[in-house]
Amino acid sequence: MDITAAYTDLYQITMAQVYFVTKPNGRAVFDYYFRHNPFGSGYSIFAGLEDVLDILDSLKFSDSDISYLKEKGFENEFLEYLKNFSFKGNIRSSKEGDVVFPNRPILQVEANIIEAQIIETLLLNILNFQTLIATKASRIRYSAKDAILLDMGLRRAHATGGYYASRAAAIGGFDSTSNVKAAEDYSIPSTGTMAHAFIQSYNNELEAFRDFARIRPENCVLLIDTYNTLKIGLPNAITVAKEMEERGDKLFGIRLDSGDLAYLSKKARAVLDAAGLQYVKIVVSNQLDEIVIKSLKEQHAPIDVFGVGTNLVTGRPDAALDGVYKLSEFNDAPRIKLSENIIKVSLPFKKQVYRMLDADGMFYGADAVAIYSEGEVSQMEHPFDITKQIDISELEKEPLLELVMEHGKRVAPARTVTEISKYSQSRLDKLPVEYKRFHNPHIYKIGLSSKLKNERNNLINQHKS
Amino acid sequence: MDITAAYTDLYQITMAQVYFVTKPNGRAVFDYYFRHNPFGSGYSIFAGLEDVLDILDSLKFSDSDISYLKEKGFENEFLEYLKNFSFKGNIRSSKEGDVVFPNRPILQVEANIIEAQIIETLLLNILNFQTLIATKASRIRYSAKDAILLDMGLRRAHATGGYYASRAAAIGGFDSTSNVKAAEDYSIPSTGTMAHAFIQSYNNELEAFRDFARIRPENCVLLIDTYNTLKIGLPNAITVAKEMEERGDKLFGIRLDSGDLAYLSKKARAVLDAAGLQYVKIVVSNQLDEIVIKSLKEQHAPIDVFGVGTNLVTGRPDAALDGVYKLSEFNDAPRIKLSENIIKVSLPFKKQVYRMLDADGMFYGADAVAIYSEGEVSQMEHPFDITKQIDISELEKEPLLELVMEHGKRVAPARTVTEISKYSQSRLDKLPVEYKRFHNPHIYKIGLSSKLKNERNNLINQHKS
Repeated sequence: MDITAAYTDLYQITMAQVYFVTKPNGRAVFDYYFRHNPFGSGYSIFAGLEDVLDILDSLKFSDSDISYLKEKGFENEFLEYLKNFSFKGNIRSSKEGDVVFPNRPILQVEANIIEAQIIETLLLNILNFQTLIATKASRIRYSAKDAILLDMGLRRAHATGGYYASRAAAIGGFDSTSNVKAAEDYSIPSTGTMAHAFIQSYNNELEAFRDFARIRPENCVLLIDTYNTLKIGLPNAITVAKEMEERGDKLFGIRLDSGDLAYLSKKARAVLDAAGLQYVKIVVSNQLDEIVIKSLKEQHAPIDVFGVGTNLVTGRPDAALDGVYKLSEFNDAPRIKLSENIIKVSLPFKKQVYRMLDADGMFYGADAVAIYSEGEVSQMEHPFDITKQIDISELEKEPLLELVMEHGKRVAPARTVTEISKYSQSRLDKLPVEYKRFHNPHIYKIGLSSKLKNERNNLINQHKS
Repeated sequence: MDITAAYTDLYQITMAQVYFVTKPNGRAVFDYYFRHNPFGSGYSIFAGLEDVLDILDSLKFSDSDISYLKEKGFENEFLEYLKNFSFKGNIRSSKEGDVVFPNRPILQVEANIIEAQIIETLLLNILNFQTLIATKASRIRYSAKDAILLDMGLRRAHATGGYYASRAAAIGGFDSTSNVKAAEDYSIPSTGTMAHAFIQSYNNELEAFRDFARIRPENCVLLIDTYNTLKIGLPNAITVAKEMEERGDKLFGIRLDSGDLAYLSKKARAVLDAAGLQYVKIVVSNQLDEIVIKSLKEQHAPIDVFGVGTNLVTGRPDAALDGVYKLSEFNDAPRIKLSENIIKVSLPFKKQVYRMLDADGMFYGADAVAIYSEGEVSQMEHPFDITKQIDISELEKEPLLELVMEHGKRVAPARTVTEISKYSQSRLDKLPVEYKRFHNPHIYKIGLSSKLKNERNNLINQHKS
C-alpha cells in the first residue's frame, strides 16, 4: 500500500466537497494535541513529525483514487480540484523527540480548510502512534538504566505499523531493532540472536551452537532454553565459548527466553563467571515491559540486554494515544468547541506555547499557552480555577512551536532518528525526576496567558447566550 | 514503505546464512498457531491469508536491501542467493474467515528452511494482527445484532496497520469503513458523517447543516453535539430534515458523539418520531466496544448505527495475538520444542486438523489434530490427560488445512473480502452459542490422534534421556 491522499477518512472528502462549493478559500488553523499521557506517565515523547513532513511533501491523489471517488459520486469539478491537490499550508510544531504534555498544542496546521481536513487523518494516524510508542520506549529506557535495549516486536506489531514502531522505539531510547526494513530505511542499528527452530533443525544443540558460532561469530548470541536452560543449554554455550576463544573469537552473549529471568540470570552469571567468561553478556526476552524490567533491576538480576517485543510495539496496555485535531481559527476569527465537560472545551485562536525554565535550566513544571500574536507573556493563569495565577515575567521561556513547513515546503532541515533520539534524551534530562516516576507522577501544569483565558471565556459566554 | 523480503527480523537472515552454508537443501515444516483466544473469547476468526499469499507471490529483496545486508557483513555468495530469493514452498491453510481455536495448526508452511524462516516474521505480522481485529469485529457484531457497524478507527490505528485493520474489521462483520484507501483497494463499502470542525467553520450550526444537506444529500448524517445536543443540534437537524423533504431528499441520520448515549438516543428518537421523522436513523460513536454496545442494547437504546474506532482497530485491551511459528518437521524427521510448561510443548510432524460436525451440522465442540500421512482418524485423545478419549469414527469430519500455495504459486482462487466475510458468518452460524458468550465461554477442545499423541510422547522421552 502506498500512502496517497486517499489515506484519509471519507468524511474529510465529503466535507471538502462542501467547502469547495461554499468556502473554497477558507483559511483554517487546527491544533494537534492529546488529552492524557499514555500509561499513566508524567510526560510523553513527541514522535512521527519527520514522517509526516516527508509524506506531505509529495502527497497526491493517485489516478485510481480519483476513479474510486468518481464512482462514489463526487462531482467532476471537485474531482479536477483533487487531481491537482497538494498540501500548500504552514506547519508549526514542537521539535520531534521533545518532552510534551496533554492539553496544549503540539503541532499547528494553518492552511486552506480543504487541505487541512484532508491531511487530518494521516497526521493523527502517524503522530498518535509514534508518540505512543516513543513514550513507551522512554519508560522502558528509564527502567532499564544503562542496559542495552533491543526492539524485537515486528511479529506482534499491527501489520506494517511495526515499521513505524521500530522508528519510534529508537527515538524513545532503544539501541537497536530486529526489524531489517526499518533499520535500513531509518539508519537504526539492527541486531538479532537465533530462534528455537534453528536449534531444532539439528540433532543436538551443541552442534547447532557450533555451526552458528563458526559461521556468524560476530555478536553471536546463543539461545539456551530450547531443551533445558541450566542443564543443557548453558554447558553447551560454555563449550562453544571456549572453542571460540581458541579461534580468537569471543561469544557475545547467551539468551534466556523463558522461565524466571531473575533466578536464571543469576545462576547463569555465576556459572559463566566461574568458567572465566565474565565478558559473555546475558540477554533476556519474554513479555518484558517497563514494570518487569524495573522488578528485575530491583532484584539485581545481572542482565546486560533486554529484548522487548509485544508490549513495546503495541504500546500495551493503552494501545492508543487519544490525540485530536481541533479547529481554533477560521478566516482569522477564533473558533471553539464546547463540551459538557469543561476540560474538553477546545482552546480558540492561533497560539504559541512557551516552556519555562528555572534558574538551573531545568523545566519549570508548567508550559504557558498564549495567543500567537500577543508575544511575550508575563502572567500565566490556571485554565479554569480563577484563584490561580503565576508571575512568569522573570523566567526564561522557550517558544515551542517552530515553523517546519511553509506553503507546503519543508523549511527546517530533515533530522535523523539518531539526532532526534539524542535530542529527546537531552530534553528528558531537563525534566525533574518526580515527573518520571511510574506511580502517581507529578502533574506538569498547563497555563494560559491572561489574554487567551479572557478571550476564551468571552467566546464560551457568547455561545451560551 | 514497500514490503520486500527485508520486512523480517535480522536473525532470520543470520540463521539463513548459516543454513546456506551447512544445510542449503534442508526441508522444513512450520506450523502457525496461537496459544490463547484474544479478549477471553471462546473462538477467533482467522484473517490475513489473502494478503500473505499476495505478498509471497512476488516477494523479493530489493537492490537497496541487498546493499544494506552487504554493509551488515553478509557474504557475497549468500547475497547472490538472496538476490535470486523467492518463496517456492507449499502452504496449507485454514480458510480465511473460518472460526479457529488455540493450540492447533491454522496454517502450515512446507519449504526450504531458508525460505521458511525468512517469511516467518511477515507471516506472523500479518496473520496475528488481522486475526486479532477480525475476532474483535466479530464480537462487536455479536453484540450489535442487526445494527449497522461502521469502522472509523484510522486516526488511532497503529500507523499503516490501520489499512489492514479496516480489511479485518470487514471480515469480522463490519458493514463499512471510513478508511478510503482500504475501501478502494479491498472493495469495502465506505461511509462517513461530518466532523465538529465543519460546523465550527460556520457562524451557526443551522447554516452548516443546510449547506451540507444541500450539497451532499445522499446518506447525509448531521453531527448534533457541537454546541448542545438536545437544545440546539436536534432542533436544527429537524429543521433541515423538513427542508430536505420539501426537495424530495431524506435525511439519513443524526450522530451523537458525546454524553450518555442511551439517554440521548431515547430522547432524540422520541423527538424525531414526534416530528414525523421515524425514518431518520440514530448513529452513535465515542469509545464504543462490544461491552458498551451490549449494555446499550440491554437498555433498549434505539440506535441504528454504531461507529467504532480505537477499540476496534487497536484490538484493545489485548492489542496483540500471541501467534507463533514452530518447526514440526525437518528433512522428514519430526521436531519438538520442549518447555517446563507442558502446554507449551510443540506438536511434532506435518499434520492435518479435522473439524467434527454433529448430526445437525453444527460444530461438535472439538477439532482433532493428526499426523498428515495417517489419514482418517477414529479416536481422539486429550493432549495430556490419559483418562480422556473419544470415539469419533461416526462423526462427519472436515479436513481444515487446504493447499493454497504450491511451489510458491497460488493454487486456490483469490477471494474477496465480501466472500470471506460471508463465509465467516456461515461458519459462526455453526458454532453453538455457548462458545460465543463473553463471560466464561465454553472451551472448544483440541484432541490428538492416538498416533500423534504416542509419537509426541516418545519424542519427549527421547529428549529427556
